[in-house]
Amino acid sequence: MERNLVGDVVDKIGGKVRLKGWVDTVRDHGKITFVDLRDRTGIIQCVGANLERVSPESVVEVIGMVAARPEKLINPKIKTGSVEIQIESLKIISPAAELPFDMGTDDLNLDLPTLLDYRALTLRHPKQQAIFKVQAVIINAFRQALLKKDFVEFQAPSIISSVPEGGAEVFKVKYFDHEAYLSQSPQLYKSLLVGVFERVFSVNQIFRAEPSVTTRHLTEATSLDAEFGFIDSWKDVLEMEEYVVRHIFSEVGKECKNELALFGATLPTLSDKIPVLKLRQAQEIIFERTGRDIRAEKDLAPEDEREICKWSSEEKGSDLVFISHFVTKKKPFYVYADPEDPTYGFSVDLLGRGVEWSSGGQRLNDYEEIIEHIHDWGLKEKDVELYLQSFKYGVPPLGGFALGAERVTMHMLGLKNIREASLFPRDMERIDTRLSETTQK
Amino acid sequence: MERNLVGDVVDKIGGKVRLKGWVDTVRDHGKITFVDLRDRTGIIQCVGANLERVSPESVVEVIGMVAARPEKLINPKIKTGSVEIQIESLKIISPAAELPFDMGTDDLNLDLPTLLDYRALTLRHPKQQAIFKVQAVIINAFRQALLKKDFVEFQAPSIISSVPEGGAEVFKVKYFDHEAYLSQSPQLYKSLLVGVFERVFSVNQIFRAEPSVTTRHLTEATSLDAEFGFIDSWKDVLEMEEYVVRHIFSEVGKECKNELALFGATLPTLSDKIPVLKLRQAQEIIFERTGRDIRAEKDLAPEDEREICKWSSEEKGSDLVFISHFVTKKKPFYVYADPEDPTYGFSVDLLGRGVEWSSGGQRLNDYEEIIEHIHDWGLKEKDVELYLQSFKYGVPPLGGFALGAERVTMHMLGLKNIREASLFPRDMERIDTRLSETTQK
Repeated sequence: MERNLVGDVVDKIGGKVRLKGWVDTVRDHGKITFVDLRDRTGIIQCVGANLERVSPESVVEVIGMVAARPEKLINPKIKTGSVEIQIESLKIISPAAELPFDMGTDDLNLDLPTLLDYRALTLRHPKQQAIFKVQAVIINAFRQALLKKDFVEFQAPSIISSVPEGGAEVFKVKYFDHEAYLSQSPQLYKSLLVGVFERVFSVNQIFRAEPSVTTRHLTEATSLDAEFGFIDSWKDVLEMEEYVVRHIFSEVGKECKNELALFGATLPTLSDKIPVLKLRQAQEIIFERTGRDIRAEKDLAPEDEREICKWSSEEKGSDLVFISHFVTKKKPFYVYADPEDPTYGFSVDLLGRGVEWSSGGQRLNDYEEIIEHIHDWGLKEKDVELYLQSFKYGVPPLGGFALGAERVTMHMLGLKNIREASLFPRDMERIDTRLSETTQK
Repeated sequence: MERNLVGDVVDKIGGKVRLKGWVDTVRDHGKITFVDLRDRTGIIQCVGANLERVSPESVVEVIGMVAARPEKLINPKIKTGSVEIQIESLKIISPAAELPFDMGTDDLNLDLPTLLDYRALTLRHPKQQAIFKVQAVIINAFRQALLKKDFVEFQAPSIISSVPEGGAEVFKVKYFDHEAYLSQSPQLYKSLLVGVFERVFSVNQIFRAEPSVTTRHLTEATSLDAEFGFIDSWKDVLEMEEYVVRHIFSEVGKECKNELALFGATLPTLSDKIPVLKLRQAQEIIFERTGRDIRAEKDLAPEDEREICKWSSEEKGSDLVFISHFVTKKKPFYVYADPEDPTYGFSVDLLGRGVEWSSGGQRLNDYEEIIEHIHDWGLKEKDVELYLQSFKYGVPPLGGFALGAERVTMHMLGLKNIREASLFPRDMERIDTRLSETTQK
């Protein structure tokens, strides 16, 4: 007898099924026992008499009849709530040890360190699983959107030989007799590949030796990178990014209804067009709305990001907003300075729900200008040798953007800490297990 | 006037088009100049009189009329060979410096060090581009095959805190005040996630501090990993792998006809079913065919792999062959020993065209047996803490496999060196540029 999946059982009333999965919860009513069985497609209630004692999270096989539940016992909260399995046999495939905490509640009420100390277990909770199903849909939607537009996927390397943009937050690798580093971004690779494929994207791990423990930083994260050539202006970059983000929202909306519902989450609201503000315009608006005069600042502080997102939602009906024209010299060397006022560059952040989701913009493509910027920024040509090689031999006007997969997941679901949006979060104090006994207690 | 793509021009005879791309080659015939223009969709011949001098690889815009070529001048080798563009204007968007070698030949006749020293340039050659278009199709086909079977994609971490399987070929990372490592395989993560999602896959970078320079090893490579639970036997793993490999072949066959043709490559031949041999059976066959008695060896040497692939092609009509039942103690601790003879385990390699493409098999899922193996293998429980946590709380019988993206690409196209199948290959002597002046000259 083949295995049946929980998700396929509802229309098999009166039939016999063979289910395999995990014991989600056990409710022992004396002779009668209720066992909720969980597999990759859902949860179903099974009921039997004189069953062998079985512990939650054990892997079991249940053979039984599918029966309709009486009207008043129907559970509208789960998809299989109109039926139950009358157990004929229950076999333990792999027993679970006693759980360190109750897993059978709608929410896992654990503090973050405990959630992570027991990561292999806590990920099994349906709400934890949901986070990463949404993340997988986000990442796949990113790819599919770009494949439709002729982008070529590439695999970005993680080990790099130099750190042109300064090494404060870079991890060092002992590379045979040399020193190497972990890549903070595939920026230079994706740009140089525009000279090859015109349009490229990658999904890859990036690394930052962030020396502090915050709710929004990880030392290893997943970056969704896109870059393309033959743009007519920096606004083409925004258009492509908006197209990708809308595709992601649409796919999550279609594929993740249940997952969003578990978190009481709704997709960000978008109007016809994501508003675009220059940094200085955004600062003016913040000044007008709050009286805080930040108009001379070179960047937006976290509270500014929250305020401008509030403005965008209230005034423009858009939970997302682009901020452009940051101060050129505060950006990396490849930023394209606005010819009308080179103090500001064609760099663009996408903010959503109060925080930065992505950064991007137009990049320099003229070889001589790139060389000039490298010198102005105090860098060495030798450290960007391969990158320069590309531009020496002709690259069209180009731009691109990078979305943080964990950030997008976090803010789509309303999570409080970015660690919740990473399967195996790494920070200064933790690589799976705690790095020292005294931390995070 | 919008930009036209080269691939869309053939049916626009008599119309005016605006093309943008790279100058692939220039042939100067006095007053008349022929310029082959390359964009992401193909190459087309443009012809004009009294043109400004333009160097190969420069980025240009060509405006002109599409004209049919006279019958005898039709070039059947390219898709646009029946037409040419009569140039009205040619504008240089981004000029290229003089090339260090001729890029306009069907083959780039360069030695490997030069090919890699000029990687940003050499990748532009259509044959080099083709390698990575095929690779992108392989990787996407891997994903799509598994998504259809309910697998969940996950992002495997690269930084790990311990190396349970020994540290000889592992890269060390300075992780704040601690030592960390780069992951050689997502094996433990994918296995523990079977306890969460039942079926998972990942596409991720793996790292090996391979202390020698060979034609088949990279220090950073892309691994295509799959793992799933509720298997009835180790043969379920082979079946799933065969399904995935067939899907990859079918997609490459459909999507990469031109790329395969450039290399004169054909897809590996498959019969109804990929043959499966136990290690000892394979050795017996090799002994019978060659007289070399390797029947007591614990593994297959490269020449054995070539010989058994030859046997499979000749006798079974299959360019791929599975080898199972390797010696248990030669495999990692999680290998499932055959209960009928625990000397051999349910580990399975997939060989293709003379070399290993993948390894996989059934893994232990019983907590007590895993603990026992860990002790037998001389490892510490502490080094696999998170992994053990998963199995402590119930994991079904499971297995999986990993395909090397570069290896599959290499052997599908008949490349001689695995570096050719990596955009930015890393080895002990090179991270993009050479690590020391004296190497690889």
